[in-house]
Amino acid sequence: MTTAAMPPISRYGVPRLEDLPADIRDRIVAVQEKAGFIPNVFLALARRPDEFRAFFAYHDALMEKEGGLTRPEREMIVVATSGANHCHYCVIAHGAILRIRAKHPLLADQIAINHRKADLTPRHRAMLDFAMKVCEQSHRTDEADIAALKAHGFSDEDVWDIGAIAAFFAMSNRLTNMMNLRPNDEFYLMGREVRRA
Amino acid sequence: MTTAAMPPISRYGVPRLEDLPADIRDRIVAVQEKAGFIPNVFLALARRPDEFRAFFAYHDALMEKEGGLTRPEREMIVVATSGANHCHYCVIAHGAILRIRAKHPLLADQIAINHRKADLTPRHRAMLDFAMKVCEQSHRTDEADIAALKAHGFSDEDVWDIGAIAAFFAMSNRLTNMMNLRPNDEFYLMGREVRRA
Amino acid sequence: MTTAAMPPISRYGVPRLEDLPADIRDRIVAVQEKAGFIPNVFLALARRPDEFRAFFAYHDALMEKEGGLTRPEREMIVVATSGANHCHYCVIAHGAILRIRAKHPLLADQIAINHRKADLTPRHRAMLDFAMKVCEQSHRTDEADIAALKAHGFSDEDVWDIGAIAAFFAMSNRLTNMMNLRPNDEFYLMGREVRRA
Amino acid sequence: MTTAAMPPISRYGVPRLEDLPADIRDRIVAVQEKAGFIPNVFLALARRPDEFRAFFAYHDALMEKEGGLTRPEREMIVVATSGANHCHYCVIAHGAILRIRAKHPLLADQIAINHRKADLTPRHRAMLDFAMKVCEQSHRTDEADIAALKAHGFSDEDVWDIGAIAAFFAMSNRLTNMMNLRPNDEFYLMGREVRRA
Amino acid sequence: MTTAAMPPISRYGVPRLEDLPADIRDRIVAVQEKAGFIPNVFLALARRPDEFRAFFAYHDALMEKEGGLTRPEREMIVVATSGANHCHYCVIAHGAILRIRAKHPLLADQIAINHRKADLTPRHRAMLDFAMKVCEQSHRTDEADIAALKAHGFSDEDVWDIGAIAAFFAMSNRLTNMMNLRPNDEFYLMGREVRRA
Amino acid sequence: MTTAAMPPISRYGVPRLEDLPADIRDRIVAVQEKAGFIPNVFLALARRPDEFRAFFAYHDALMEKEGGLTRPEREMIVVATSGANHCHYCVIAHGAILRIRAKHPLLADQIAINHRKADLTPRHRAMLDFAMKVCEQSHRTDEADIAALKAHGFSDEDVWDIGAIAAFFAMSNRLTNMMNLRPNDEFYLMGREVRRA
Repeated sequence: MTTAAMPPISRYGVPRLEDLPADIRDRIVAVQEKAGFIPNVFLALARRPDEFRAFFAYHDALMEKEGGLTRPEREMIVVATSGANHCHYCVIAHGAILRIRAKHPLLADQIAINHRKADLTPRHRAMLDFAMKVCEQSHRTDEADIAALKAHGFSDEDVWDIGAIAAFFAMSNRLTNMMNLRPNDEFYLMGREVRRA
Repeated sequence: MTTAAMPPISRYGVPRLEDLPADIRDRIVAVQEKAGFIPNVFLALARRPDEFRAFFAYHDALMEKEGGLTRPEREMIVVATSGANHCHYCVIAHGAILRIRAKHPLLADQIAINHRKADLTPRHRAMLDFAMKVCEQSHRTDEADIAALKAHGFSDEDVWDIGAIAAFFAMSNRLTNMMNLRPNDEFYLMGREVRRA
Repeated sequence: MTTAAMPPISRYGVPRLEDLPADIRDRIVAVQEKAGFIPNVFLALARRPDEFRAFFAYHDALMEKEGGLTRPEREMIVVATSGANHCHYCVIAHGAILRIRAKHPLLADQIAINHRKADLTPRHRAMLDFAMKVCEQSHRTDEADIAALKAHGFSDEDVWDIGAIAAFFAMSNRLTNMMNLRPNDEFYLMGREVRRA
Repeated sequence: MTTAAMPPISRYGVPRLEDLPADIRDRIVAVQEKAGFIPNVFLALARRPDEFRAFFAYHDALMEKEGGLTRPEREMIVVATSGANHCHYCVIAHGAILRIRAKHPLLADQIAINHRKADLTPRHRAMLDFAMKVCEQSHRTDEADIAALKAHGFSDEDVWDIGAIAAFFAMSNRLTNMMNLRPNDEFYLMGREVRRA
Repeated sequence: MTTAAMPPISRYGVPRLEDLPADIRDRIVAVQEKAGFIPNVFLALARRPDEFRAFFAYHDALMEKEGGLTRPEREMIVVATSGANHCHYCVIAHGAILRIRAKHPLLADQIAINHRKADLTPRHRAMLDFAMKVCEQSHRTDEADIAALKAHGFSDEDVWDIGAIAAFFAMSNRLTNMMNLRPNDEFYLMGREVRRA
Repeated sequence: MTTAAMPPISRYGVPRLEDLPADIRDRIVAVQEKAGFIPNVFLALARRPDEFRAFFAYHDALMEKEGGLTRPEREMIVVATSGANHCHYCVIAHGAILRIRAKHPLLADQIAINHRKADLTPRHRAMLDFAMKVCEQSHRTDEADIAALKAHGFSDEDVWDIGAIAAFFAMSNRLTNMMNLRPNDEFYLMGREVRRA
């Protein structure tokens, strides 16, 4: 099929690694060594070093901290809310991470389309219902929402985490949509061969 | 990760092949021989033979006919509009078909999330803009929409095809959502290994 | 009042009866003999014989089958969902059929505008609430919706019928909107003189 | 068909004519003599005499004044915007008035469902486009909207009239929806027999 | 900061006081003497004397009558619904009146943005929930809404008042948006210095 | 008027200053010395030190950097998008900052309600149109949006700034809505006495 020419990573272009501040270059190289490629979001944001540093510091504080929600749970929130925001980069990149972290090859595609009919436990359904409410109508959140989460064993700190991840990706989705950030081709296939027990 | 128990194919259950009318069983067997598995929509609809026959006759009239839109173009319309309708089955099953027919492993996931930022030619962007308008607000379609399509070389018959495919899957998406139709696990991985030239 | 010139039946024109395949011409003649005129949807779809056959086979499987929902109930679903989709043809044509089948001259106009405040029994209100949910947000349907219908005596098969009729007219409304299908003038007055007992 | 019991005119009940202030009773009697029946809105509002007087004074200032928009044009605005607000009473009552004043038995039903595909002149299409914008998103009205109306010969005073009628019925639709005001059965059939020249 | 030139009060201009009918001029002078300035809505509507008279008669019947809702309660309804309708004039002018009448300098700004998170008693939260439903989707109001108000001690007449004020400002907001009515500069600061006990 | 009891600053409570890490305490003390009070967002976020540091690093990178958009322009973006997200804290706190930085006591209240009818230059109208698109439907941003900004003299870097500020407050609004963050009473009156030249 005739397709569009390979589009650029971002409408803003990307800097050369060697032109970047050392701390940013180091972070990018570390990611590349771990993943085998550089996720485009690192290159796209690197042209604004202060924003790069704050973005990833925030990201890590929410997504990499110890305790609280499991890693797959955090990625489920990202995929569901990024689907609602129609963000290519985040659905496809974090869909890959969710497949890998959950060792579940199907869940990400389901959640991106409609978490309400995905293969979820009631606990995860409640978690994503709240994340989607923060994503789509945070001004209507209330104590009944919190109570619904607590009924599934989530703590007040977990509620903060769920809401804060949904909020962080409300930002991230808008940034990547604004710059037409293109997901790396590598993401699409990652984690798809894992079989469920 | 702990996940929900494997849910049923459909909230309505599925009939046994041996209990089906011969023409329906034959169609299902033929599909199975070609695909290697039975797509769940065939089993789910088979318990209503008259509806099964009409559904697939209509499907084939739009999706399998000679001439007009290419096969990948038709699948692009299905994936885009089914994404807008949050339909698991159609996005995942037709995403697989689109990957195979277009020999393009990335396009389906992009279109399902946001056709506006997918790797599309201007012609295909215009095609999907119209399909989405029929999907989401058909009462606002007008001659300016038709003119926009003609500017990209689509004929009046092509316009009908685009709109009719969007309309048919408006029905299909609602049916499968209503019955919680679950896509076969096989679809998720199909066509993902094909490389673009 | 100065009005627009009488617009065409459809932006696609209509074929001549004598040019149609015999089975399609026979069906159209039969409808004409029964109704006294040819409803425009028959003429508009006849230029695509395979689609015509599938469309009416599906229509009849849902709208003319024995058992299950009553005929007026089926028409109520059509009118309510076609109103939500802003479809002239289906509201006006099926409004006429509803008036005749229900022997009720008022209900169709009420349902087309707002089923929530129409002269409905609680059973019919529940039926239309579900039909409208399938029409407008099928991805949110869940077991609570089914339970609400069962509380009014609807069976699982009735639920399928309600949803499938809403789904079929989601397609039909989009087709007729896309082609600017104009309802026959005859429909507007049909069934209006019937008095309630 | 089994239908709901005849519902009351309004959830607030209606006063007895003999209990009303003389000016209100006189107005109601005059309407009854002209129309042959008392439109329910008069009875429903009469229990609040000051509001009754202000409502009809405002109504008459917009709908009965000399000059400017024609009578059928004003009724077209009422029917279109009342359809958007899903108001039984106003669509059905003013649909009747539109049929009579325009001597056109079809236009009201078309406009109530979708003015964009009704049998309208371009001038009336532009008029209703603006009325619907005032109805649905008045905060977005701007000078381009005014220019579009002026291109069809509407004056600044006409623009005010179009917008003010849409605004007045934004109020009226909410009042009648809030009180479940039921249209008189007589309205449904009025003006339907008139033939277009 | 460079800002736009001081825009006109209304896109329709304003008449000279001395050209107005005596009753309208008297009312305007009376308002001016009480408030110290002429609120722009009086000038903007005065060019249409009949509409001016009906508008303020209706306004007074709802907003100035004895009994029922308190004055601050009525203004809370105006501010909340005018915020939803994105109407500068009504939010800013009635925000000032609310601050003064409630002797509360903060509530108006909170309610204009999001009544759900404002410093409200449960009774006032319920009142504004209903007002917003009449404002945004009056066709869905039902007996459950009324029951929720009665649980907080509102009478049937109070329900009418809440709904009627929301309905009246649905009109007023559209009128002022249509004419780009600009709030007087005086309103912004009024009532802000009052301290809560 | 009887009002709700003074609600807490945040549903999560706030830490004691003396329990905070030194860098966070120092930042809070510095803000307090400059503003005369501690804006609640500092206290509410301080219980999560890593998120506090990242949040304010990001905030400062966008809102305090040299060059590009003026300070009032940045605050205009915050107020407009926070109004769309119905966020008390950000509208009221940044409304105060906008009044002070723009030396304009009226603009913030106007923009919070409806930027389209505020006292804006065409340049600022275009800036806020884009910010609102990033806020509300970032997936639809395209090159035409960028071109519209460039026609008013905005550079590519300015476009990034506008979009990134809208994106950052999409996050901030959701965080503060989730935790019911209450704006300090001091904000409401700040900057209101400044007179335009």
